Amino acid sequence: MSIVSVEAAPERTDGDIGRAVDVLTQRFGERCARSEAICAQHGHTTTWLPTQAPDAVVFAKTTEEVSEAVRICAEHRTPVIPFGAGSSLEGHVNAPRGGVSIDLSGMNAVLEVNAGDLDCRVEAGITRKQLNSYLRDTGLFFPIDPGADASLGGMAATRASGTNAVRYGTMKDAVLGLTVVTASGEVIHTGGRARKSSAGYDLTRLMVGSEGTLGIITELTLRLHGQPEAISGGVCPFPSVDAACQAVIATIQYGIPVARIELLDPLMVRACNQYSKLDLPEVPMLFLEFHGTAAWVREQSALFGEIAGDLGGGPFEWATEAEERTRLWAARHDAYWASIGLRPGSKAVATDVCVPISRLADCLEDTRRDIAECGIVAPIVGHVGDGNFHVCLLVDTQDQSEIRRIEAFVGRLNQRAIDMGGTCTGEHGIGQGKMKYLRKEHGGGVDMMRAIKNALDPHGILNPGKITPGD
Amino acid sequence: MSIVSVEAAPERTDGDIGRAVDVLTQRFGERCARSEAICAQHGHTTTWLPTQAPDAVVFAKTTEEVSEAVRICAEHRTPVIPFGAGSSLEGHVNAPRGGVSIDLSGMNAVLEVNAGDLDCRVEAGITRKQLNSYLRDTGLFFPIDPGADASLGGMAATRASGTNAVRYGTMKDAVLGLTVVTASGEVIHTGGRARKSSAGYDLTRLMVGSEGTLGIITELTLRLHGQPEAISGGVCPFPSVDAACQAVIATIQYGIPVARIELLDPLMVRACNQYSKLDLPEVPMLFLEFHGTAAWVREQSALFGEIAGDLGGGPFEWATEAEERTRLWAARHDAYWASIGLRPGSKAVATDVCVPISRLADCLEDTRRDIAECGIVAPIVGHVGDGNFHVCLLVDTQDQSEIRRIEAFVGRLNQRAIDMGGTCTGEHGIGQGKMKYLRKEHGGGVDMMRAIKNALDPHGILNPGKITPGD
Repeated sequence: MSIVSVEAAPERTDGDIGRAVDVLTQRFGERCARSEAICAQHGHTTTWLPTQAPDAVVFAKTTEEVSEAVRICAEHRTPVIPFGAGSSLEGHVNAPRGGVSIDLSGMNAVLEVNAGDLDCRVEAGITRKQLNSYLRDTGLFFPIDPGADASLGGMAATRASGTNAVRYGTMKDAVLGLTVVTASGEVIHTGGRARKSSAGYDLTRLMVGSEGTLGIITELTLRLHGQPEAISGGVCPFPSVDAACQAVIATIQYGIPVARIELLDPLMVRACNQYSKLDLPEVPMLFLEFHGTAAWVREQSALFGEIAGDLGGGPFEWATEAEERTRLWAARHDAYWASIGLRPGSKAVATDVCVPISRLADCLEDTRRDIAECGIVAPIVGHVGDGNFHVCLLVDTQDQSEIRRIEAFVGRLNQRAIDMGGTCTGEHGIGQGKMKYLRKEHGGGVDMMRAIKNALDPHGILNPGKITPGD
Repeated sequence: MSIVSVEAAPERTDGDIGRAVDVLTQRFGERCARSEAICAQHGHTTTWLPTQAPDAVVFAKTTEEVSEAVRICAEHRTPVIPFGAGSSLEGHVNAPRGGVSIDLSGMNAVLEVNAGDLDCRVEAGITRKQLNSYLRDTGLFFPIDPGADASLGGMAATRASGTNAVRYGTMKDAVLGLTVVTASGEVIHTGGRARKSSAGYDLTRLMVGSEGTLGIITELTLRLHGQPEAISGGVCPFPSVDAACQAVIATIQYGIPVARIELLDPLMVRACNQYSKLDLPEVPMLFLEFHGTAAWVREQSALFGEIAGDLGGGPFEWATEAEERTRLWAARHDAYWASIGLRPGSKAVATDVCVPISRLADCLEDTRRDIAECGIVAPIVGHVGDGNFHVCLLVDTQDQSEIRRIEAFVGRLNQRAIDMGGTCTGEHGIGQGKMKYLRKEHGGGVDMMRAIKNALDPHGILNPGKITPGD
């Protein structure tokens, strides 16, 4: 039994795929690559799922080229898999039925920045760090920060978020409009630049999180934010995971507009201490950040310190100097690499769930007990202001019995989150890895998803074998 | 020519509707009403569009009853029109092809409040004032406030917002999950209680704004907010609409988290002075409100005062006492009634558009010139922090030539907003009134909307003749 529902590839229509690749090669020349290395690189996964390489990779430069490539694939009923940075976590870029990967990493231009409206338009292949580097001198920034330096198109496709989501929202909130190539190769524009609209169905939000199965995102109009005047931040130890969670709940209830509030369990603190040369006490720890005016961040930091103290936590040591903060957050963002240090030679596989924050302490406690009972190494780190946490599974990918044990653990974790009114994924997406949990979470809603998929992609060429079972 | 695309009713299948109504009467007894008065009341509009009454009205008490009623209607291919408070502004509750109105106003229970998670679950017929009245002692509130005391189901269906949206978002942001009765009468649950999720297509956001054409919302899980510790607010005059708009832009750019920022043009100020016994100078005026801690709202109010002064506006007179603030905001919320006083005997018809805020001054200036040139009476009030404004058209509904003149004006207004990168409706919805602008705004996206509609409602029984042309 596998936690993934990677179906046996149906009989491949290689003839069709072969013809599509021939036509694409005629059209795109060297930008239609067929080498084994390039194909394998585009069908890789960040999990223990096997690589399922596409038959070819088209390196597109414009929306029109994506449209042309999709038209050719549509004519030959050939699967199309959009590819950005390849950093997705649930097998989204795999090609279980072969086909053509469309690599958008060359489409990384910033097309316009409208400072007065706090928005910008970018090509889908730009990464979040590239965008923020471009914006640095404008006084604006784009807040959403998944662990990896993902592409904006991929972030939209997986409805990504990150440490800032508690304050700035997720990709659902950040995207104002999209340019999308449909399954037939048509180009449509969703949304617009107005900050709100009631004009028709919300195609933008339908595309956000659809993981390339309803269309290929080629451009995005994004909301930006002003760089905060002042930032304060620091770390706060707690006597228990439960006390840390209670502090999070109180913070949210008091309406303290914390910009980041991240929980590290003792094992994750140890990993970060080792990897990033910190000397934090190895107890449950919150990393926090506040954005605002100088007076405001002082007031809010002090207020949080009181909350923490009331719950037996603290001292909350915070600073407004950039250097110390940067060192802490670099450590937080390196948590993935740090955890590998706990078990050298292993592969770190990140899984995520999200629950109502009132259930967060229960969910964490049950999960930590489960980890202990099944004898796996799995530090926890979480965007706990949203009730979202990651279990970083350190896997010996050569040990099939360990993989089965971990798959069973992930299954229990997902079910636990769903049973608590939560979701089997807060920000990673369904991909191949979580398909079987979708119906547990959404019941008959999955049939509605399926109906939409069939309506918009009747031949099932858009990223088949992802999200919705049965295609 | 009419601005509305109310198609000639196709040949009515009265036999089918009649049979559906007979079966519904058997099932629901007196709760299936057929009297002319009740039917007319449910097919009314708040515009100059003619009333198009349904053939019957079912007063539902539970989701299961809505499901039963829809199953009966589906069997007999009978249109179903959901009805909440009847306060929609673009003919959403009209029954252009007859059928059955399902009145949800009796489904107004608060099913649960989870204070720790800042969420609640309600039945769709509850109004926003009923909900806030229920919440008063919990320390929580629901911020979204369209002018009318609308039902939450209707607010979700039209993607409504209001004066607080600049701070708290719109119904798109407020809804965590929905219970929906589909076109075949099935009950599905979308979303959940987690604050974010990447699990599959965002059916919640697809239903929000779908105006009853994809399903009937019967329950909502909503995000709540803590009642602010302190509120300050007041009014600030400006020498020109342009200066007021520049102040709005600067406020947003500085990241001042204003809770409300509303523009009244001089004519609307006069209307409010007359109706609500105020003595404001009859110049462009911003109404503002700040939510936060006492120190914070003082700091932010002072900061706004400086911005206004730099642009030739002010003085910004603000207070933290509830009484004066309440009087001002009551006047703002009565703007609709106040405007009728400018032309006794007329009907006030509200239309709305939304543009990027950098274009707001241009759009308002062009619109005010247009109003002057076509000799209509039309004060303006707007949620300008979002770039959204309303023109309150005072119409003599007996004068067909005036209606034609106003229809042409609305057409130019919508086109102007779309040409500026905005939308033909920021918060009222498409309904019957704005169908012909949908393609101007969304182009080929309308075909995708149509495909979704056909997939989820193959027989076109859900609120036909709204949003998507061609059904």
